[in-house]
Amino acid sequence: MQRYYFDYAAGTPVDPIVEKAMRPYWAEKSGNPGSLHFFGQEASAGVFNARDTIAKALGCNYKEVIFTGSATEANNLAVRGVVRSFRLKFPGIKPKIIVSTIEHESVLETARDLERDGVEVVYLPVDKNGLVDLKKLKDALDERTILVSVMYVNNEVGSIQPIKMISDMVKNFRGSNNYPLFHTDAVQAFNYLNCNVNDLGVDLLTLSSQKIYGPKGCGLLYIRSQKLNVKSQMLGRNFISPIITGGSAQEYGLRAGTENVPAIVGFGKAIELVSNSRELENKRLRKLQEYFLAQMKKIAPKAKLNGPENLKNRIPNNLNFYFPSRENESGTAQDLLIKLDLAGFAVSPGAACTARTCQPSHVLKAMGYSDERATSSLRFTFGRPIFKSDIDKLLNEIKKF
Amino acid sequence: MQRYYFDYAAGTPVDPIVEKAMRPYWAEKSGNPGSLHFFGQEASAGVFNARDTIAKALGCNYKEVIFTGSATEANNLAVRGVVRSFRLKFPGIKPKIIVSTIEHESVLETARDLERDGVEVVYLPVDKNGLVDLKKLKDALDERTILVSVMYVNNEVGSIQPIKMISDMVKNFRGSNNYPLFHTDAVQAFNYLNCNVNDLGVDLLTLSSQKIYGPKGCGLLYIRSQKLNVKSQMLGRNFISPIITGGSAQEYGLRAGTENVPAIVGFGKAIELVSNSRELENKRLRKLQEYFLAQMKKIAPKAKLNGPENLKNRIPNNLNFYFPSRENESGTAQDLLIKLDLAGFAVSPGAACTARTCQPSHVLKAMGYSDERATSSLRFTFGRPIFKSDIDKLLNEIKKF
Repeated sequence: MQRYYFDYAAGTPVDPIVEKAMRPYWAEKSGNPGSLHFFGQEASAGVFNARDTIAKALGCNYKEVIFTGSATEANNLAVRGVVRSFRLKFPGIKPKIIVSTIEHESVLETARDLERDGVEVVYLPVDKNGLVDLKKLKDALDERTILVSVMYVNNEVGSIQPIKMISDMVKNFRGSNNYPLFHTDAVQAFNYLNCNVNDLGVDLLTLSSQKIYGPKGCGLLYIRSQKLNVKSQMLGRNFISPIITGGSAQEYGLRAGTENVPAIVGFGKAIELVSNSRELENKRLRKLQEYFLAQMKKIAPKAKLNGPENLKNRIPNNLNFYFPSRENESGTAQDLLIKLDLAGFAVSPGAACTARTCQPSHVLKAMGYSDERATSSLRFTFGRPIFKSDIDKLLNEIKKF
Repeated sequence: MQRYYFDYAAGTPVDPIVEKAMRPYWAEKSGNPGSLHFFGQEASAGVFNARDTIAKALGCNYKEVIFTGSATEANNLAVRGVVRSFRLKFPGIKPKIIVSTIEHESVLETARDLERDGVEVVYLPVDKNGLVDLKKLKDALDERTILVSVMYVNNEVGSIQPIKMISDMVKNFRGSNNYPLFHTDAVQAFNYLNCNVNDLGVDLLTLSSQKIYGPKGCGLLYIRSQKLNVKSQMLGRNFISPIITGGSAQEYGLRAGTENVPAIVGFGKAIELVSNSRELENKRLRKLQEYFLAQMKKIAPKAKLNGPENLKNRIPNNLNFYFPSRENESGTAQDLLIKLDLAGFAVSPGAACTARTCQPSHVLKAMGYSDERATSSLRFTFGRPIFKSDIDKLLNEIKKF
């Protein structure tokens, strides 16, 4: 059976060019970058070149890029690391962090976990379009606030947050103080949006390799060193503590463990490929998105779009629809999901990280939708291998339903 | 130039069979195991099969295997996770952990880091052969001790600890109580020694993929569930807390982040290959080890063996020699290392994770050797691609020195 994948937000296949770039590092160049000899230096050079490529794409210094084992780990490092560092310096003060209610679980669950340890957490509400309430953010900022974390693009509805406005607000508030820092999870943004850290004005930024046609098992945390004002080898040290300790020379002391050389090399190549093709791919996917939306209005008039109606406020590869339960029938979206899957079309009820739990989407609920709507919605996300003919086939299947 | 790698303890090349097993997972089978659709289930099956293979090799249930991004992360999960879980349950009690002085930095530095948070740490001394002092362990065990962590095989001198004796001692002490738990870092052991968790009697055990001809970026923590006496989906939950949080369905709630499917599949294949060839490879390498040692006595009579003289007390791929500084000359071992590297032979001054810091080996110092000896020693480690002819070439280079 021919199968069609419409779940690019959950993960992307590895680009053949990325796979090729990784290949020499399995056996020939398989040294440990920590080793002083030739094999170690060869591996170390692979890591350095990737770090440098990525730094250029983000507009930062290579020492500001910390590789992790996943974007989830990078988000944990950002949130836990800033809290731990603060606590070591100011053990008497109860730290406060602000996160949006539609963050990925790796930020949200981490915030909840820190609450158990006595951290105060403010959960910032969003509107019907999945955009954070800037007025409420302003009100929530106070002297104990050490971190604000708002994702660049939401993984379920594709809504784009006004990151620059948020970073300006945070910076205005902190003035010449060190806190609060501003972190953004840019995992779903990098394929489509400018992620230059200076244009965004962020202090911390998370990326994932596996969402941008790179390999699984690799993420990164950008950590601004100018702001952090520390010396070469120790950059973020003063404002962020590692959550995984061991070899202190790895990742500038902020993440111990042998560097995942092939994955890092692949991540670097993936970032280079996206940077070179972003504009074209954006335009191409926007047309497909507009087409899919227009067709859906015809073939499934009862389905309602979740997230921004104005497509400019969402990334071009995402559409998310509510399928209202039919009379005497519940779980319409689940039925559709299963029927589509059996016909060879893969779509998602929401984030893959929480799909197995079958809970109503916390994102749709935070946007003010009912439990029924938050349970009976489907996400369609497109990617490089998707063309109009694939979308026509998908539409044809939805039509049958 | 033909190059020769003698640093298999720092990392192994990926076996071609492992690389082949990983290949379908880059693009065709690149789904997110959290997704409910076909692509997700296909990826999930890859993870499940690897987990099952590994569980069989360890003699445990598949739900007792938690994949991590590295062995360093697994060691952090063991140490930090047990401490965190205990603290949430018994916030008033100061926990105590016992670790040997020759642990890998991922245990030792983590213990030091926890000391900063008020955990009491006992550092267990070792003898000249790098074996822990069992009498001192017995004396150190008390009611506040929640974890004992002693590595199975040391990464620098290859000494094998009496894990079964230690686990018996810990179990005798705890009787019907839950604490202390016993963890062993078996990263350097798996290639050569029985790692059946029941034969060893351990509660927690760490393995690394990249030390056994699997890919980098993958480790695992075995967590005994019988002892922990909890229900299916939550196994270790009651005695270990995650250090990376997010999607709660991943790794049974103990490690969030999209599963690194290709690496996990490769890790499973690597474990299968080692399990099938361990005995033969052991015998083969033991002969090479005996040969190398005998030849070294002839060509470098001043060099002294570090670690067990009785080769039965060390794994068969490791020899570590002290090269005493010559008259009016210091750093003899470093000079030899550089000359060997220039001639194409890669050896190591100690652990790769700490090589960059150029400090005297903490392992050799713990074994009672001087700073000079701990700085002027070299580790030679062999692996699958090494034959007698390679060793002869290495000996020839050492002879010239």
